[in-house]
Amino acid sequence: MGKLIKTLYSKTTASMQHSFIREILRVTTGVPGMISFAGGLPSPASFPKELLKGLFSEVLDKEGDDVLQYGASDGDPVFKQIIKDFEEVPSLPDDEIMITVGSTNGIYYFTRTLIDPGDIIICEAPTFPGSLTAMESCDARLVGVEIDEYGMMPDSLRETLERLIKKGEKVKFIYAIPEFQNPTGRTMDLNRRRAIIEIAMEFEIPILEDQPYRELRFEGERIITLWELARTEFNNPKLVTIVKSFSKILGPGLRLGFAAGPPEIMVPMVKWAQKITVSPDCVTQRAAARFIEQGHMHKHIQYIIDLYRPRRDAMIKGLETYMPDNVKWTNPEGGMFVWVTFDETFDTDELFNRAVENKVAFIPGSKFYPDGKIKKNELRLNFSYSNEEQILEGIHRLASLL
Amino acid sequence: MGKLIKTLYSKTTASMQHSFIREILRVTTGVPGMISFAGGLPSPASFPKELLKGLFSEVLDKEGDDVLQYGASDGDPVFKQIIKDFEEVPSLPDDEIMITVGSTNGIYYFTRTLIDPGDIIICEAPTFPGSLTAMESCDARLVGVEIDEYGMMPDSLRETLERLIKKGEKVKFIYAIPEFQNPTGRTMDLNRRRAIIEIAMEFEIPILEDQPYRELRFEGERIITLWELARTEFNNPKLVTIVKSFSKILGPGLRLGFAAGPPEIMVPMVKWAQKITVSPDCVTQRAAARFIEQGHMHKHIQYIIDLYRPRRDAMIKGLETYMPDNVKWTNPEGGMFVWVTFDETFDTDELFNRAVENKVAFIPGSKFYPDGKIKKNELRLNFSYSNEEQILEGIHRLASLL
Repeated sequence: MGKLIKTLYSKTTASMQHSFIREILRVTTGVPGMISFAGGLPSPASFPKELLKGLFSEVLDKEGDDVLQYGASDGDPVFKQIIKDFEEVPSLPDDEIMITVGSTNGIYYFTRTLIDPGDIIICEAPTFPGSLTAMESCDARLVGVEIDEYGMMPDSLRETLERLIKKGEKVKFIYAIPEFQNPTGRTMDLNRRRAIIEIAMEFEIPILEDQPYRELRFEGERIITLWELARTEFNNPKLVTIVKSFSKILGPGLRLGFAAGPPEIMVPMVKWAQKITVSPDCVTQRAAARFIEQGHMHKHIQYIIDLYRPRRDAMIKGLETYMPDNVKWTNPEGGMFVWVTFDETFDTDELFNRAVENKVAFIPGSKFYPDGKIKKNELRLNFSYSNEEQILEGIHRLASLL
Repeated sequence: MGKLIKTLYSKTTASMQHSFIREILRVTTGVPGMISFAGGLPSPASFPKELLKGLFSEVLDKEGDDVLQYGASDGDPVFKQIIKDFEEVPSLPDDEIMITVGSTNGIYYFTRTLIDPGDIIICEAPTFPGSLTAMESCDARLVGVEIDEYGMMPDSLRETLERLIKKGEKVKFIYAIPEFQNPTGRTMDLNRRRAIIEIAMEFEIPILEDQPYRELRFEGERIITLWELARTEFNNPKLVTIVKSFSKILGPGLRLGFAAGPPEIMVPMVKWAQKITVSPDCVTQRAAARFIEQGHMHKHIQYIIDLYRPRRDAMIKGLETYMPDNVKWTNPEGGMFVWVTFDETFDTDELFNRAVENKVAFIPGSKFYPDGKIKKNELRLNFSYSNEEQILEGIHRLASLL
């Protein structure tokens, strides 16, 4: 090749941006003495290593010929049924659920199923940038809708939809993380869930519900998912597709998640999977299936909750103890993140550099906004990866820089 | 949703075809008494279940905290180095190799890196439809180049490139399976490899080399890959990207492969992986790494060769014994497939229905042609899945239908 290979890039490849968050993780990982609240990593203490060890052995021993062979693109039928049982929808038809290589994979397939270049996705502002980059790689345009303490704001959603549709834009779906949202830790309450579903039905726009943290509820009442709410109370089984992940309850290295939604969405998503991964890892799927089937999951989730709750408590206590009065934060009922808001003129991008020099890291809030309308006075703190002592010390360091 | 969800599909999703090969596999799998030469499945006897069982345990035990955590999108660094050692390129830079979720995954990322809708990919005619559908999902147009017993024909490749470039078409890459090709079982010889590289260099078109069967050589001399040939003899390290698979030497259920090529290709491929799968399964990567590191791979490959060689021999013997004189077939030095050619007026699509009624299955040759120019008088036979007795009986059944 004399010619520069870059001249052969597809338009999307040529326009791919460098990930600022990956850069943050790169410069803050493995630095001696660094207390990092930046990543979104589960604690290694949350990994059920001993149980998985036994289950991988058992699966390879008894079912090796099956699970080492090519598997179905919609996922291991055994695992699918066990997930349906665990999710208390045992009779869900097989073409309304598929296993994915983690939930980002499901988000990509959902997006690829619906998005032509330039089509619009409505999402929360702020929201999880990992999903946004998957969506942008399908050349979607992202439009953010403001959130308050109860989640996406219905009036703002309605106004946004009316404005876009009036302009002739193709709005393809609404993306929401209703529980312990990344980055804010906020949970959409039941009334708000109903309101969002009503608007989505009125405008006939499907919803993609991302639920990676749902099982990690430390306190308070479990709220019905948008997916279940639409299917039951609204008698609308086509509206919502849900993606869930095993990354926060078994381990992200296993790359397992699943998507559930109407066959009109699942069938093409499976076709995309055929072309892109053929199937998720079949050995791992079956080991995860046996983990649930043998009754370990509920107990293990409780173990993780008992591990993370004191970490969340330590973070809130640290913020209460060390932060000045004009700083606000969320107090999440679960998940992995706390969201901190400073005075409107405060700049957390600037704070970031000083923080890293002082061996404490976070992600500036500006990195979580889907479109140009960013806010600079917020930041995200992760509490799942560090222990209580580190959390208190880290918040102390951070507060001392204000 | 009152609106039909299908009206929201992206153009590519809306135009996705049903896979005829999947349909064949569906109607021929699990039928009592069926002898199927249709699939491309490795024999379950080729799966190193016992060794993998021990290695998964060992990895979860000793390295569980590491491999259950999020992993790098370019693959486990430990596995990457072990692959480089195994492939005898220990000093290959880390940004010239990535691990993929099987080799189809690498083919998709490579295609997505280079293809805009309507761009052209040159491939062998016939070739592997699984790759073609991955390429078509990026809206590539496929143009076939005739192959003879030595692989893709240089004159035909040159003419095709000249014709397309004269028309102003964007030809983005050449896709080739040089060894024990799927579907023909043919191997591109060294002279032909040189000729193809020279033409690719002259036209400045990169090559994607697909090598899923390379390790399964039953006899004859190993031939240098296009990737290695371009890097060494032609001093051109940018021209060829190679994808290899662990599906045929460890088990397809593990979903492991790798790609090696210039950083200009690997870096964007890794960016695509970040957005689509985040990473391959990290536990499985490490178990496969330890399998190679502990010295099992060469011995295990020899075991598979000793398993498949007599099956290939049985198939050739069956063809010699039962087929009429006007039928021709390839005699592959390795891999999993034999390609049978009948008189020009013969129709293997028609034969297929009668064959299935008589409990023997194959894939009609017409399914392997990348563009409209199909041939009807050929068929593909797989010899890796059935044992010698079944193979002889299956060929007997097939021949009796002629």
